[in-house]
Amino acid sequence: MKIGFIQFSPVFGAKEKNFEKVEKLLNNISADLIVLPELFNTGYLFLNKEELMELAEPKDGKTCDFIHNLCRKKNCAIVYGFAEKDEGNLYNSAILMSARGIIGHYRKTHLFFEEWFIFKSGDLPYQVCEYKGVKIGILICFDYIYPEAMRTLALKGAQIVVLPANLVLHFCPDAMVTRSLENRIFTILADRTGFEERGTKKLKFIGKSQIVAPDGEILIRVDDDECVKVIEIDPLIALDKKVTPHNDIFKQRREDLYFH
Amino acid sequence: MKIGFIQFSPVFGAKEKNFEKVEKLLNNISADLIVLPELFNTGYLFLNKEELMELAEPKDGKTCDFIHNLCRKKNCAIVYGFAEKDEGNLYNSAILMSARGIIGHYRKTHLFFEEWFIFKSGDLPYQVCEYKGVKIGILICFDYIYPEAMRTLALKGAQIVVLPANLVLHFCPDAMVTRSLENRIFTILADRTGFEERGTKKLKFIGKSQIVAPDGEILIRVDDDECVKVIEIDPLIALDKKVTPHNDIFKQRREDLYFH
Repeated sequence: MKIGFIQFSPVFGAKEKNFEKVEKLLNNISADLIVLPELFNTGYLFLNKEELMELAEPKDGKTCDFIHNLCRKKNCAIVYGFAEKDEGNLYNSAILMSARGIIGHYRKTHLFFEEWFIFKSGDLPYQVCEYKGVKIGILICFDYIYPEAMRTLALKGAQIVVLPANLVLHFCPDAMVTRSLENRIFTILADRTGFEERGTKKLKFIGKSQIVAPDGEILIRVDDDECVKVIEIDPLIALDKKVTPHNDIFKQRREDLYFH
Repeated sequence: MKIGFIQFSPVFGAKEKNFEKVEKLLNNISADLIVLPELFNTGYLFLNKEELMELAEPKDGKTCDFIHNLCRKKNCAIVYGFAEKDEGNLYNSAILMSARGIIGHYRKTHLFFEEWFIFKSGDLPYQVCEYKGVKIGILICFDYIYPEAMRTLALKGAQIVVLPANLVLHFCPDAMVTRSLENRIFTILADRTGFEERGTKKLKFIGKSQIVAPDGEILIRVDDDECVKVIEIDPLIALDKKVTPHNDIFKQRREDLYFH
């Protein structure tokens, strides 16, 4: 299976420009699964809820249409982060799309910093979805700091967990190595890069998108340039939970002792 | 509070030599809490259960006496790993000792590799104990790979989690940074160093003992030499679970979504 990510710097509020950039980066790329950053179509630094309401879309909105067409054209699945509007609620969401339509939908549960003022914390369960026979779980950015989130997906059979992100702190890439290792799964971190300056606020995003194998090996980690990377993996490896011949780390979990 | 670790290469089966080495390393050292490696008194590579039965001790055995005397002499607390014999059962255990006696007792729950053939998996709960008003949790070596273990201790209020270890793989030191970060606690990894060659078996231990702060900063990490290191920390920092002013990562856990 060929899996990869697009790392780029979205232009705030300029959806068409961001669509163009993604389409251009995918030109000549062949892959089964591509992960885009969190809020790839709008950028990150919303100054208030009104601005977010303006740019957010229902999950079957025009960003959905753009990605769906791209999936059909490229014959691949794409995970993308976007601001979701649903009955007046605003979520920091991600969708796993294939040529056939939406396969998976997730709303970020662990919001970061001032996101609490404009987004609602997600209400959908951590669920795995299947593409080409491979089980995939979705988390978004700051979710990475909660081991329970990815553990829940891994216990449900996820072989790959994707993490669209807009990272401003430097901890996540190394922490994702631990997440892969402790769950024996592949992880794809698709971060954005570049700066955003809006009003009095300014953020620098770190890039460092990466793919990690179930044994903790960093298969690829980039710096902070715009790029698309695709590698070939065998997702079946993620079904084997043995660290040593005598350590199936899932079977040896001690649920009798955890959390009480 | 002054906390530290001793990293050294125990001589297999030679308890008195190992006692001497620890006492010598602690000479001129002043600390509140010192952590010794896993199985510090016996070494690691037991060839069979009979050999382990011979060297294991009840928790109030002579190693306990040695450490208790050392705690009185140095006016400090010491965590040490040892092979425990209790009613015919053998555990890979650790004790937190002070000048007043035993404060904490833990039996490794997640055994590694061939340990499964000679030790029994621990049956005691993950419990925090208190020394000088600071809450301390104990795990041993491979327990590190299970986020649930340290999370359970942190949710019970642990400000410091100590990890006596005999590491042969290289993942643990970096994973312990994630553990500190996701729980906002101090972690002390006290690893052994050196080689062990017994029968046809040979192991190299990696050293890399370290202390990590609640914000993920590696306060000290050594290489693979024998040494004792002590640093000053403020354990109160570990009571603050805020990553940002709007992210109390404990209060924002989503127990409604984890593990189901």
